[in-house]
Parts: sequence; structure tokens; C-alpha cells
Amino acid sequence: MYSLDLIKPDGRRLTLYARQEINPEITAPSPFDAPLNASPHLRWHPLRGEWVTYAAYRQGRTFLPPPEYNPLGVTTDPAHPTEVPAGDWDVAVFDNRFPSLGGVSAVPPALIVPSKHAGGHCEVVVFTKDAAASLGALPLAHIELLLQVWGDRTDRMAQRQDIAYVLPFENRGAEVGVTLHHPHGQIYAYPLVPPVPARMQQEAQRYYGEKGSGVLQDLIAAERRAGLRMLYEGSHAVAFVPACARYPYEVWVAPIEPVESFIRLTSDQRADLARALKTVLLKYDGLWQRPFPYLMAWYQAPVDGQAHPESHLHAEFYPPYRTRDRLKYLAGTEIAAGFFAMDALPEEKARELQQVEVALE
Amino acid sequence: MYSLDLIKPDGRRLTLYARQEINPEITAPSPFDAPLNASPHLRWHPLRGEWVTYAAYRQGRTFLPPPEYNPLGVTTDPAHPTEVPAGDWDVAVFDNRFPSLGGVSAVPPALIVPSKHAGGHCEVVVFTKDAAASLGALPLAHIELLLQVWGDRTDRMAQRQDIAYVLPFENRGAEVGVTLHHPHGQIYAYPLVPPVPARMQQEAQRYYGEKGSGVLQDLIAAERRAGLRMLYEGSHAVAFVPACARYPYEVWVAPIEPVESFIRLTSDQRADLARALKTVLLKYDGLWQRPFPYLMAWYQAPVDGQAHPESHLHAEFYPPYRTRDRLKYLAGTEIAAGFFAMDALPEEKARELQQVEVALE
Repeated sequence: MYSLDLIKPDGRRLTLYARQEINPEITAPSPFDAPLNASPHLRWHPLRGEWVTYAAYRQGRTFLPPPEYNPLGVTTDPAHPTEVPAGDWDVAVFDNRFPSLGGVSAVPPALIVPSKHAGGHCEVVVFTKDAAASLGALPLAHIELLLQVWGDRTDRMAQRQDIAYVLPFENRGAEVGVTLHHPHGQIYAYPLVPPVPARMQQEAQRYYGEKGSGVLQDLIAAERRAGLRMLYEGSHAVAFVPACARYPYEVWVAPIEPVESFIRLTSDQRADLARALKTVLLKYDGLWQRPFPYLMAWYQAPVDGQAHPESHLHAEFYPPYRTRDRLKYLAGTEIAAGFFAMDALPEEKARELQQVEVALE
Repeated sequence: MYSLDLIKPDGRRLTLYARQEINPEITAPSPFDAPLNASPHLRWHPLRGEWVTYAAYRQGRTFLPPPEYNPLGVTTDPAHPTEVPAGDWDVAVFDNRFPSLGGVSAVPPALIVPSKHAGGHCEVVVFTKDAAASLGALPLAHIELLLQVWGDRTDRMAQRQDIAYVLPFENRGAEVGVTLHHPHGQIYAYPLVPPVPARMQQEAQRYYGEKGSGVLQDLIAAERRAGLRMLYEGSHAVAFVPACARYPYEVWVAPIEPVESFIRLTSDQRADLARALKTVLLKYDGLWQRPFPYLMAWYQAPVDGQAHPESHLHAEFYPPYRTRDRLKYLAGTEIAAGFFAMDALPEEKARELQQVEVALE
């Protein structure tokens, strides 16, 4: 993997990644001239016992893009710079212009609840230069590179004392609120371990303490023995609809052996994880012969300098559809109680996805 | 409050409530002839440490309703019975035909994760006979009656040994997935305290243990002193945008003094709570001069027979809009991490709602 670190005119960082050497003459564009000097802040939610971040920005300059303008496409017209340059790169990562976390440290407003500057960092990950592609359509070697990029970003964040947890994710599709359709994801690096990973960490630690093995490791072994919900089973990685799915087409992708983060993946594991991931994405798009929306989140261990034998890197996909034409709305019981109600059985949904034939290159 | 308990032809229970005596000759209709004999089951999610319920039903009989058929409207054509009879009632509550919890106890499927019958109970609450009304449009006395009804339902559930938590809620609007626009809500009675109330309970208990006062009680006092986010301030109840709002137009409604459940409200508190609730609902609908969608959830103490001085009955409203034209999608950070990011300040949203003038009758 080759990489090139650049600074944008507005001060944000850009890293280009490629499978081949990158021309060091490339310069970083930006649609914005000057720094935003944004300073999001956190407020304590005393009833839920969690922090909420507030980032109320207004875009600084008048911005009249041409009709076809794609801020994540490569810059072709210097009069309308985008977020990424033309050139021989495969994946690009840059600081989010409107971060929910990070930005400039400033004194937070005085409030009736505790508040503080929202430390952390938000990045955008452009998966490919090809605006018409999708993550699943990329060659396996390109997907492997992306897994390496997520590792490099996690590693960089892990060096920072102010960051506790790194979450790479992709929101895909208008159904989940995505307005830019160029293939891309985001990375949130949190100044604390957020509620869901904290809960998962607590459960994994308890299980590991009791059994001496990983909770996901043991679940994967049980799913493989049961067989009926598996979507991909390679020598190092698997994909399956979990028996406890909370979304109709929920799928998990993971290395078979517990690996605590992207940083620790071997190249064999990474290659097979790319195959598992591509298989799921092709099955999703093949199911109804149209782009399949989802939220894809990659869970890994907190970056606290400790060993985490209980943690097990994996992706969870939460698609918003429950049938071809019907969305699953999160409503009363899910949102208000955190208690999920499913009107489909994971076994049935797994069968639908199993029947979609896919060909890896 | 008057009430009449009835049994539908398919075995489900119906209770009619009114401010005046109800004709005891009324009989309970049902769109369905026979019991469903549904048996939802729970599966354990080992990574999150929570139960998920599975209720995969298919509607039992061919059902061809006329175009204007409203299952929550009163039955006018005996050939097409609805869920509620005509007659002199104000609020109706009946067993959900397709419950996520409850139904017939049966042996759950053998699985690789722990499973069990999904105990509990799901009810539908018809707020009014008037299909064209809305909760906020109802007279104050009618809203007070509804608060009493929620108390009666909570009280009935509290008698059952198999129920641990009662959550009345309303999903309103197509934006949150509602297909039946007749004003109605639901009640989920859980066999366990679900994740969000469990977390809130834990935080409230810790706070009460440390300070000897309620966390919401103290927050309400601080909001009243601060003043800038208040929407209603009566002698017994308040409504406000909380300083720690996670949704742009989030509003909380509560009695000022801690009351652990609907059962314990005094009539003065109930009357003022109805005023606070109606004020919020009228402000919502007045904001953009159109019906304002939301999820409204009422949190109260677990029904475990213990005293809960730390608990404080209140409603939280989560509207899906962040501006007149834009929805707030819950995406990567909210869904995957449980960490909320707001691009609006609660103070600004409170000001918008404060400026909407409303007249209580």
C-alpha cells in the first residue's frame, strides 16, 4: 500500500492511498478557501447517562456549484475544485469539513448540564474515483486496500491520546438519508467509547471472563455448525444472517478467528474478509436487481493501548427494507425502548440471500 | 371515568372508556372471525446483551375491505366490522391482533442462542372516535381522560406477575411509518425492563442515591430557572426542549414533582399535564401549519411492586424533521454507536416553538 499525505487550502488533511506509487506532485484541492474554525461541543444527557454532540454550522461562503458538480469526484475544472484531486490513487481520506467531533478546541457554552469541547475526529473515505461504482462492484484487490486503509486510519487515531474509539461506517442509499451517491464512507473517532460499543465491550468482557473465549468467536462457530444462515464461509472469514438479527436483512461479516481491530488483520485474513464482504454486497444488489441501501458499521476494540482478547472485529449491516417494497421503520419499541421487534425470521431472510448467485472475480 | 370490558368474536379484549356512562348493551366487533393463536418468541442477542422479539405472522383470512375502510373507525356496516363499535365512548383499548409480545405460550424454536416465549402484552389505544381529529385537537377533558386510561392500563398490567414495564407511545405520521391515520397509540407491556428504560432507571437510581433527589426533578428545576427552553409552565406540569435534546424538535412533558407512574397522578397534576401536552401538540401542528409527525413515548417506573422514588413519569417527543423540508435520518453514529449528533441547538429550536401561539380552550 502506498500513501501520500497532503494539506488542503483550507487546512484540512487529505491522504491518498493506492496499490501503486503515487505521483508526489499531486496537490490537494478543496471546495472551500478558508478554515471553518468549527468547534462542536458535547452536552451531558443526565437521564440516559451519555454525551450528545452539537455542531451547528453554517456554510461560510456563497457556493454555486454547476449542475453536475460532485464534491467527491476528482477535480476536473479548477474553477470548481472538489474534495479530491485527479491522479493515480485508489482510495482517499480527508477531514470532514463539517465535523460532529474535533475541530477547534474552544470553551463550550455554560449550560444547566455538563458540557465540554467535542474532541475526536471525523473523516470522509472516498472508496474509489469512479462515481458510478459501488463498494461491492470494486475488484477484490481494491476492497482489500480499503480494509488496509481502515487499518491505517485506526492506527493513526490510536496514536492520539484524545481518541478512545474508531468506527468506520457507510450509509448507503437515499432511504438512509444519503444525498451524495459517489461511493464513500465515514470514520468517526470518538473521545470516549460510545454507548453501543461500550455495551458490546461490557458483554464481551463478561463472556470472556466466564468462558475464556470470545462471544462472537463462539457464535460464529455455532452459526457454522448450524449452517442454515451462512452466506459465505471461507478459510479465514465468514458472512451470515445472525440468529439474533434485529433487521430483516441484517448480515454480519467477520474473520473466523478473533482479531481485535483492522490493525491486527493478517494479509490472508484481509484477503478472505474482502471476499466475504464482496459476496454480501453482490448478494444485496442482486436480491432485487437494484442498489440495496444499508448502514454498514465496523466494530473493533477501543484504542486504549490495552490488549482486547475479548474483542472481535466485524461488520454489521442494517438494511432499511423488510421486503422489496416496504421499509422497516424504527418506531415506538425500537427507538423509545431499545427493544427490537422483527416480523421476519432470520432463517427466511438468510434463505433469500443464499439464493442470490454471485461470482467473485 | 366509566369503562366497559368486552370480548371480541376472535377472543381479544376490548375496553371502552368514557366521561359518561356507557350503554352496557354494546358488543365488541372484530374484523377477524377466529383467534390468531400467535406465539411470538424472544431470542437472546449475545453481543448486545438484550432480547429481540420475533413475530412472523401471516394474516389468516382473505380480507377485502372497501376503499374507505378504517379498522379503527366505528363499525357502521356489519358486513365490514372494524375494531371498535359505535356508541357513546371516548377512548377504546383493545388487544393488538398481531402482537410482538404475548399471544399464546408455546415452546420456542431450538436455536444457537437462548430463546423463549415472548411474554407480555400489546394493546392499541384509539384516542377518539373522530378519524379526522388528532390528539392535540381533542378537548382538555378528553386528553385528561386519556391520561387516566393510560393509568388504568398500567394498573392492570402491574397486577400481572409476568409484566415488568409498561410503555404507552404514539407513532404519528407517514414519515415514521404510520399507515393508519385515525388518532391512536399503542401500549407495549414488556416481560422485562427493556434496554432504554433499564439504562434510564440505572442512571436515575445512581443519581438518587448520590443526591437524594430525582435527576429529572432537578433538571426541571434547572430548566425553569434557565427559562430559555420552556414551552409550558403550569402549576403542576411543564413542557420544554431539554438542554440535552437528541432530536432537533425534541420536547419533554412532565409533572413538576416526581410521580413514578400514571397510576399515581393526582387529578390536579393530570389536569395540568393535559394542558402541557395539548400546548406542545398545538405548537407542533402550528409550527408549519401542517400535522407534525413524531414519536411520543411515556416513561414511567417499572411495575415490580417496589417503590420508585427515583422515577419520574414523563413524555419524550422525537420528531423526525430537522427543518420544514428535511428529515433527520438516524444513521452511522446514532444507530451504530448510539451517539447522537445534532446540527441544531436546542435553544434555537425552543425559540421556534415558543413563537407559535396556541390557545387552550
